[in-house]
Amino acid sequence: MELKEVNLKLVRDLQKILRKDQISVTNPDRLSYGRDSSSQAIIWARANQVKYPPDVIVWPETTQEVSKVVSFANSKSIPLIPFGGGSGVCGGTWALHGGIALDLKRLNQILKLDPIKMNVRVQTGINGEIFERELQRRNMTLGHFPSSIYVATVGGYLACRSAGQLSTKYGKIEDMVEGLEVVLANGDIVSIESVKDQPKQLDLKELFVGSEGTLGILTEATLKIHAMPESERFLAFQFRSLEEGLEGIRKILQRGVSPAVVRLYDELDTILFGSHKEKSKTGGVKESLQNSLKPMLTCIKNRSLKIFLKHTDRLGKFLNYLPGSCMLILGFQGFKKIIEAEAEIAEEVCLKYQAADLGPGPGLYWKKHRYSVSYKLSPIFDAGFFADTMEVATTWKNLSNLYHAVREAISKHALVLAHFSHAYPEGCSIYFTFVGYGENLKKSEDLYQYIWREALEACVSSGGTISHHHGVGVLKAGYMKDEWGAGLNWLNRVKNQLDPRHILNPGKLGLTPLI
Amino acid sequence: MELKEVNLKLVRDLQKILRKDQISVTNPDRLSYGRDSSSQAIIWARANQVKYPPDVIVWPETTQEVSKVVSFANSKSIPLIPFGGGSGVCGGTWALHGGIALDLKRLNQILKLDPIKMNVRVQTGINGEIFERELQRRNMTLGHFPSSIYVATVGGYLACRSAGQLSTKYGKIEDMVEGLEVVLANGDIVSIESVKDQPKQLDLKELFVGSEGTLGILTEATLKIHAMPESERFLAFQFRSLEEGLEGIRKILQRGVSPAVVRLYDELDTILFGSHKEKSKTGGVKESLQNSLKPMLTCIKNRSLKIFLKHTDRLGKFLNYLPGSCMLILGFQGFKKIIEAEAEIAEEVCLKYQAADLGPGPGLYWKKHRYSVSYKLSPIFDAGFFADTMEVATTWKNLSNLYHAVREAISKHALVLAHFSHAYPEGCSIYFTFVGYGENLKKSEDLYQYIWREALEACVSSGGTISHHHGVGVLKAGYMKDEWGAGLNWLNRVKNQLDPRHILNPGKLGLTPLI
Repeated sequence: MELKEVNLKLVRDLQKILRKDQISVTNPDRLSYGRDSSSQAIIWARANQVKYPPDVIVWPETTQEVSKVVSFANSKSIPLIPFGGGSGVCGGTWALHGGIALDLKRLNQILKLDPIKMNVRVQTGINGEIFERELQRRNMTLGHFPSSIYVATVGGYLACRSAGQLSTKYGKIEDMVEGLEVVLANGDIVSIESVKDQPKQLDLKELFVGSEGTLGILTEATLKIHAMPESERFLAFQFRSLEEGLEGIRKILQRGVSPAVVRLYDELDTILFGSHKEKSKTGGVKESLQNSLKPMLTCIKNRSLKIFLKHTDRLGKFLNYLPGSCMLILGFQGFKKIIEAEAEIAEEVCLKYQAADLGPGPGLYWKKHRYSVSYKLSPIFDAGFFADTMEVATTWKNLSNLYHAVREAISKHALVLAHFSHAYPEGCSIYFTFVGYGENLKKSEDLYQYIWREALEACVSSGGTISHHHGVGVLKAGYMKDEWGAGLNWLNRVKNQLDPRHILNPGKLGLTPLI
Repeated sequence: MELKEVNLKLVRDLQKILRKDQISVTNPDRLSYGRDSSSQAIIWARANQVKYPPDVIVWPETTQEVSKVVSFANSKSIPLIPFGGGSGVCGGTWALHGGIALDLKRLNQILKLDPIKMNVRVQTGINGEIFERELQRRNMTLGHFPSSIYVATVGGYLACRSAGQLSTKYGKIEDMVEGLEVVLANGDIVSIESVKDQPKQLDLKELFVGSEGTLGILTEATLKIHAMPESERFLAFQFRSLEEGLEGIRKILQRGVSPAVVRLYDELDTILFGSHKEKSKTGGVKESLQNSLKPMLTCIKNRSLKIFLKHTDRLGKFLNYLPGSCMLILGFQGFKKIIEAEAEIAEEVCLKYQAADLGPGPGLYWKKHRYSVSYKLSPIFDAGFFADTMEVATTWKNLSNLYHAVREAISKHALVLAHFSHAYPEGCSIYFTFVGYGENLKKSEDLYQYIWREALEACVSSGGTISHHHGVGVLKAGYMKDEWGAGLNWLNRVKNQLDPRHILNPGKLGLTPLI
């Protein structure tokens, strides 16, 4: 593909602020930074397309350098796209209008770990896994384990309100924030404190965490940390129905027991999970179903799946005959004595629903493979399919309703499975995975976008939130109005105040573009 | 004292909105509503003074009526003071510029209790104790037990960011809010949702909770509730020093154990607590000290205390010779199995500091008398003394520093004791109680205000927050600038946007008055 010519004036201007090796306009770099890990970008990439490359990439090394770049961009009204690990899946880092990709990965220092305050001050460009490893060397943990941990940065966590796999115990990233350093569009460096028991300013955390780089550039954060848990224990149960499984989770959480891991797999996901296990504990009908579905998904190139996916209506009907039992995995972390008591209470609740005890096996298996899923998408795309995930959420009462509405919307056009994780006393997230097929790029893209529209519309009209932890980006931007209502006007007013020239990640988060 | 004449025009205007029995301009009412439960107001009342009576009191019965009154007040630029139980202690409901006292106590309905969502929608005028009793009848609890529970309203809780005695487990009131209904200065009725997993608007909870009626009138709230705990258990330990006690609490909390009750008494408070107990477990020097201090405070009319308080410098020196040991009470609530495990871990931590195990007695004694303290102030004032409490807070690292700074500031002029409660993984609150003496109204008032100035200055310069849960009101308004810094400018801008005529509780929270 052809890239726009290099803007030499822009490069010369940036060279007044940064060293030459902090600036790149090479084609490989511009192509790399023009995409993220979204399925849409992968679909394009498989067709040798990168639609939204930036004009230039810069690597500032200090907050002051960030501030200078931002000031400069503001003075010239040049779009600025903050960039972390590129693991986003909603197009949040696409350079829709060109401009400067501001890679923050060189701001990667742990500035201070305070074992009395039990918090850590860190630059936002640090990689998630490296950060966690450094904490664990000191017998501490952030408690944040998104499946993107090997790629994502702390800044990315914050920009999208990320959730880790243990969020039921440790909270989402926004629950961990005690302070932020933000570079505003005019270059001002602002410090925000957000701790109970500390002198206060107006607590603007809610504004910047989750703003996807549209209101300011996050350069530092103070995050809560925890002592490494003494002990860990897994349970698993097979519930007779999804609804009973959800009721079980709700009761466990609302009684004040907080497992670290909560994962309830829907019927299909339960079978597929089983099909991955070395040893299956289930048998009979389930086993034969596993045997028939196993080749379908492990041999993803199998022609039969393509045929299936061309007739998703029939596939949907077939899947309605699934036996309907659902597996729940619970994991507990903390003091041995406490988690034993917690596990006992959780077990009591599950057994009241006559759920079958599956022992620690499924939990241990999950733990071993917990980051694998994200790396399994490539072969699916290689085989000409597309796949994606969608994470919606709602309160307990509405959860089953939301699940059925979104699942029905997707299942007309693709194979869809789901699990319920990120559970809280108030409600729970639903994580859908879908696999679809289009004969060529055009058809794949059309179908992919159609599925998203249908699914998001089902979500919105069923009272779910369109994003639990992946963010909004470009993918869901069109549904912010449905979700926020009048609140979006308020957010736009804030945007206009903080970034009057709309240089900060324009086109994202459903904010109204400047006219 | 003389009250300003009744404003008949105002009454006639209000009669167009409300029934006659919803409006009062009688002197007893105006005098009652011209004060709160602050020590300053009590000092004045003992001298037959009520400095800031409203012109009129109204009792709206619906949000719509509130909206109409607010609209009307706004159209005429008449000050409006929202009023709950009158249990505030910072002058937050004084009618500094006259105007309308807007009593919300007739908005007292529990609108909906949802056992699936585990939340309750309630009108803000409901009394705290009645509300909690209704929840407990259904085997639920709010988990919020301020010592003002018999007087305060839910609206008052929210206006001041109230904390209950079990805040370590259940959080402060702001942690319980899932939704708000707010009447803005122009009469608009706005609904705010603040739940993870729900479609979002701009989350403005942080703005309105704690705004003390200066930004809007809170008329409804959705609050998190909990199942009544299955079981309860108390522990108590005598630590060799305050610092060791604080270290013990911090370690217990930062390891993830969360007691419901955490109370560490400083040296003097430990002795006085002991002197109240039927059976003291301590002996020797402590017992003799108790015996000498007991008459001093239980017989508060004793002349010797007046003499003591005239020579607080010497008293301070005397108190430095206290044996220095401090009592910690821990209370656990929840499932029997879990709290037994938690108690065991907490015990281990305390015993590592060689703290003496005092058994469940002190905790049970505390529980029995936990609301009594607030009703013991009257005899102190009757005897010509004044007394007050001051609740500051900071993070763990700074806690001992803050304690010594504020204690030293107060102890020059009054008898001061303190306990540390409302403990969190991040830090803890310090609750000072002080008793002083002035020969007459003028001297009492001067000394009282002088003590507050000195104490708040010590707090600010030691990095503490000037309020953990009593709010700011008039009492601490002058220190908001020190505490919030540039944040106060932002808050003032928000005030000017939301309440351009400054009708909402003017003069409170340190906001800049209109010029």
